[in-house]
Amino acid sequence: MSPSPRAHVTTERLKRQLDFIVELDKLKRILRQTLVMDGSRQENSAEHSWHLAVMAVLLHEHAGDAVDVQRVLRMLLIHDVVEIDAGDTFCYDAAASVGKEERERRAAERLFGLLPGEQAQEFRDLWEEFEARETADAQFANALDRLQGLLQNYHNAGGTWRLHGITRDQVLNRMRPIQNASPELWKYVLQVIDEVYADSDLIASTGDGKD
Amino acid sequence: MSPSPRAHVTTERLKRQLDFIVELDKLKRILRQTLVMDGSRQENSAEHSWHLAVMAVLLHEHAGDAVDVQRVLRMLLIHDVVEIDAGDTFCYDAAASVGKEERERRAAERLFGLLPGEQAQEFRDLWEEFEARETADAQFANALDRLQGLLQNYHNAGGTWRLHGITRDQVLNRMRPIQNASPELWKYVLQVIDEVYADSDLIASTGDGKD
Repeated sequence: MSPSPRAHVTTERLKRQLDFIVELDKLKRILRQTLVMDGSRQENSAEHSWHLAVMAVLLHEHAGDAVDVQRVLRMLLIHDVVEIDAGDTFCYDAAASVGKEERERRAAERLFGLLPGEQAQEFRDLWEEFEARETADAQFANALDRLQGLLQNYHNAGGTWRLHGITRDQVLNRMRPIQNASPELWKYVLQVIDEVYADSDLIASTGDGKD
Repeated sequence: MSPSPRAHVTTERLKRQLDFIVELDKLKRILRQTLVMDGSRQENSAEHSWHLAVMAVLLHEHAGDAVDVQRVLRMLLIHDVVEIDAGDTFCYDAAASVGKEERERRAAERLFGLLPGEQAQEFRDLWEEFEARETADAQFANALDRLQGLLQNYHNAGGTWRLHGITRDQVLNRMRPIQNASPELWKYVLQVIDEVYADSDLIASTGDGKD
């Protein structure tokens, strides 16, 4: 077989799927504010999404309302893909959040638009559902996203919170989606926050912790 | 609410699940031989697993035999977890593969053993099924694992292959599981290999490329 540009051999459909898959690699370069648990470096959004997906498999039994774990899983796998174009916005930084919605909408259009029609639509719908936080699936997916941030901070002795002077109320506010999505997980969250802020040389701050 | 050690408040079951989830963070430190597609650094096994999971969602339609995408997905999410204890073994390095099986078996015992009984069993079974490559689900999951390595190398101008002087036959042999699992993807694989090795300042080598 002689070499040939792949577009000639593979079907157009497979080509679009592979183009998207190659593009996804860039999510490995998007760094979050959160540190990995040994504190050695920032976490990237690809490994973060993997962590959340495994959490969904293990923890969906704790959802307050019944959830479809397969939908939650897919939602979490792709919830950060828009960051490839739009970047990661630090959740406690209100200023950086300006224009975020529009940036992410354009990103979703370009990135999911690489896929064949109905797959593009499925991913777009899942992402919008995640962002809207209205369905039980989306609320639980968002709860896991918050919980993972809490776990990272807990195991870094309050790493990001400490670094940015995030107050107890800001963290509570940020974690609030867990309260409705899972009373069981919420009990745990309260306990971690109490523990981290009891030992508090954490600075009281006036930082604007919207979201 | 006063601070209290978490074991006192959360149920034993949730505690075990969270301990495992915290342990999982270490997979972000396990580096593979493969580079991320921009060639800037080695890929870690956590982000690799995320990439594969999304590939399963998108590409399962190309499986030769019908597969259960949900099982393939879970299999891929946890297929590398044993590397937390056993490390990553370079697939073209036969010497390093000695003792791999026993190392990974012990790792599976300890790591999955952190989980509550039936979840430990589910993950252990999925991992063993992946390793055995006998079921259609496992064969397809393995095919995606190989395909991702090919994509990384293709987009790095043969990066790892070039670096280690891996021959065309070694790559073909490594990719062989794709042939049965997906004739459609196999066509693409042959074409990429032809393209990379046509432009060949790739060194012919005597490296032992078992597996």
